[in-house]
Amino acid sequence: MIETAETTEEIPHPLRSEIELAAVLHALSDPVRLKIVSALADSKGAPSCGSIEVPVTKSTCTHHFKVLREAGVIHQHQEGAARLNTLRRDDLEARFPGLLDTVLQAAR
Amino acid sequence: MIETAETTEEIPHPLRSEIELAAVLHALSDPVRLKIVSALADSKGAPSCGSIEVPVTKSTCTHHFKVLREAGVIHQHQEGAARLNTLRRDDLEARFPGLLDTVLQAAR
Repeated sequence: MIETAETTEEIPHPLRSEIELAAVLHALSDPVRLKIVSALADSKGAPSCGSIEVPVTKSTCTHHFKVLREAGVIHQHQEGAARLNTLRRDDLEARFPGLLDTVLQAAR
Repeated sequence: MIETAETTEEIPHPLRSEIELAAVLHALSDPVRLKIVSALADSKGAPSCGSIEVPVTKSTCTHHFKVLREAGVIHQHQEGAARLNTLRRDDLEARFPGLLDTVLQAAR
């Protein structure tokens, strides 16, 4: 039963309406998290933590993904042992038009 | 001599080229600082800490202004006993085009 639960969507995410500007800016205010978000923006798939090149340990990387998820910047989906990550582009664009693209541009 | 020194520009600011995206986003990632920046954007003068309505003590307000200054978001200028504040609009626009306006828009 536990194994079944692990494969379903159990990871908490804020609703679109709950996404706060200050939290999003905080999530983006770290060089490693900016790099992760840039990598997700450039990716066509839903890369896992280990598949993005960042100069931190896996546990630190996991922490950064958690901060991004809790702020509403990314969506995480468990698939077996892997946690797959996608940007919440539509939600961010609806809440704060232009913000994500402006930040991604500035991060290049 | 000390009094003379106090009236000159002694407050350290990062050069335009030293302004970092992560630091700017961190400076903007607080509801009170967002409110301060919005107030400065709407102001034609260079308001002091006490003249902006924020729900914090004067010392906390002073701290927030320091974070904004050290990140390169605002310029502080001592005039007698008052520390006057202006947004570094041109510097921010040169470094990260569109970022400040996008954030200000999102903060409304």
